[in-house]
Amino acid sequence: MPVKTIEWIGDHVRLIDQTRLPEELVYLDIDQVDKLAEAIRMLRIRGAPAIGVAAGMGVALAAQQYHGRSVKEMLQKVREAIGILSKTRPTAVNLFWALNRMEKISQDDGVQSVKAYQKRFLDEALTIYEEDRQICRRMGQYGAFLLDQSATVLTHCNAGGLATADFGTALGVIYTAHELGKVIKVYADETRPLLQGARLTSWELKASGIDVTVICDSAAGFLMQQDKIDCVLVGGDRIASNGDTANKVGTYGLAVLAEKHKIPFYVAAPTSTFDFSIGSGKEIPIEERAGEEVSFGFGKRTVSEGINIYNPAFDITPDTLISAFVTEKGIIYPPFSESIAQLK
Amino acid sequence: MPVKTIEWIGDHVRLIDQTRLPEELVYLDIDQVDKLAEAIRMLRIRGAPAIGVAAGMGVALAAQQYHGRSVKEMLQKVREAIGILSKTRPTAVNLFWALNRMEKISQDDGVQSVKAYQKRFLDEALTIYEEDRQICRRMGQYGAFLLDQSATVLTHCNAGGLATADFGTALGVIYTAHELGKVIKVYADETRPLLQGARLTSWELKASGIDVTVICDSAAGFLMQQDKIDCVLVGGDRIASNGDTANKVGTYGLAVLAEKHKIPFYVAAPTSTFDFSIGSGKEIPIEERAGEEVSFGFGKRTVSEGINIYNPAFDITPDTLISAFVTEKGIIYPPFSESIAQLK
Repeated sequence: MPVKTIEWIGDHVRLIDQTRLPEELVYLDIDQVDKLAEAIRMLRIRGAPAIGVAAGMGVALAAQQYHGRSVKEMLQKVREAIGILSKTRPTAVNLFWALNRMEKISQDDGVQSVKAYQKRFLDEALTIYEEDRQICRRMGQYGAFLLDQSATVLTHCNAGGLATADFGTALGVIYTAHELGKVIKVYADETRPLLQGARLTSWELKASGIDVTVICDSAAGFLMQQDKIDCVLVGGDRIASNGDTANKVGTYGLAVLAEKHKIPFYVAAPTSTFDFSIGSGKEIPIEERAGEEVSFGFGKRTVSEGINIYNPAFDITPDTLISAFVTEKGIIYPPFSESIAQLK
Repeated sequence: MPVKTIEWIGDHVRLIDQTRLPEELVYLDIDQVDKLAEAIRMLRIRGAPAIGVAAGMGVALAAQQYHGRSVKEMLQKVREAIGILSKTRPTAVNLFWALNRMEKISQDDGVQSVKAYQKRFLDEALTIYEEDRQICRRMGQYGAFLLDQSATVLTHCNAGGLATADFGTALGVIYTAHELGKVIKVYADETRPLLQGARLTSWELKASGIDVTVICDSAAGFLMQQDKIDCVLVGGDRIASNGDTANKVGTYGLAVLAEKHKIPFYVAAPTSTFDFSIGSGKEIPIEERAGEEVSFGFGKRTVSEGINIYNPAFDITPDTLISAFVTEKGIIYPPFSESIAQLK
């Protein structure tokens, strides 16, 4: 990866404003939790693992911003920050997973001073960050074995360096395979409405010297009809304990097409994406976003004013359509109810 | 339909520049065949039936533009015009069907004078136009029976009034059902890259008082998962004699999803869309269009310069995924090899 998606610099967070890519590479320096929450909500930073990292840093920011001497007051600010951050994106489970870890720190009775607490929060946020880097590397190594020496991979949205603290989940697998000398060709769905595939995936793959071609989301079926796709490889935003997977809207359609064409369908996601508390995808809330993302996404109105728009951000791919999950603990094969339980 | 997509006015063609919709309703007055060919190529006028009508009028224009006295010279101009028009869109069979009809007029030995020939060409073009109007009405009447009293229909691209000389093929069915008092709700795929669904279908349905909601193409699967779609209804650009159907890219993916969800999948197309000369979809050439339609479609660059783009305009839906065809001669059910042969 040529750039750092998010990092902690001195006393604040620096992140790439991904809404400005690929036209401009703009870094935002953020020292307030409200601004960080806005950045998550507006998808300036996105991708399930990166959202988790950002949330952890957001809590650390809130602790640091407290300049009084009362531990109780500071913890109150931290809890407010957790409340604000938890309302940004309802579907990505990594957000809640990271906030949970930060919440646990606030319950550590052994810590006495404001300063010591602030250090503990920052340490935990940086640990989440560092773990994500290691997790990406391990997922890349496991996942690369799934790809043939010469493979054409279809991916959706952006599950790359821009979605994590390191080089990505699905794209991390591709980067690792590429480093191992495999010849990987990638078709990237542009991924309406926010075009993360067109803007982000193609940009970062090309920067890493990987052969990438952008298609409209609806051209994926035609590529499969022509036997041009060897496997589909995507990330995940929340995975139920039976394997049902919430990911960017359109993922389900790809999985149905892959089944029709007998093409393997892989989901690369760290174990933090698995929500062991829910039995199936039916329990995953699907975020519905503003219609303007669809009607006014290209700088020009494309749907007449006053016309209804339905804009779900995710869909659910049932476990039966998934060939395997790539995690940092290894490749997870069906039956998923059993294999996922072992990840706990 | 609130507007006339294309018509012959006095000595020239008037058509709506659909690339300007929905922002502006601009009519183009065209009196030269080159300009008409450009309008077809640039999708200022599009939709298989409308392309056929435009092609017929283009040949009539070429005949009228001849101001000499030699029948032979005039027929030479006509043949040149047929050559120019035949190169505009390779997939839509109605183009070749209409040009064929015009070509036959030029072989009519009974006609002696330039003026008489000019009248014959114009009469034939206006006949194609008038037939298309009648065909739309008949298709609407047959097709409306396929829709329940209260039905939610998913459609792709624009197979409406803007795609024909009258009120459309797939949308004509919806307009007729609406007129018959049925309660029809439509989900319109925005239809990347050129957004005919977002720009055109939603615009004309709303203008006719029909409940329409625009979605991203990739949200269709999620709607079906929620049991929100009763049937899929699309147009067609070329149909092989076994029923394989070329239509706007993405149609195939919808058909696979419809099969998965046991939702009927209907194609509304006049018999002029059936190409009896080809046995299957493998023989249909698929138009590949400029990458800029994807990377720079609506005033803003969405893919970095220098990145590969693959932009097929159509895909092939195999006959096995199609529940029925709506034609002006009635509803055509499987086995299609037999039922389509009877359309000849």
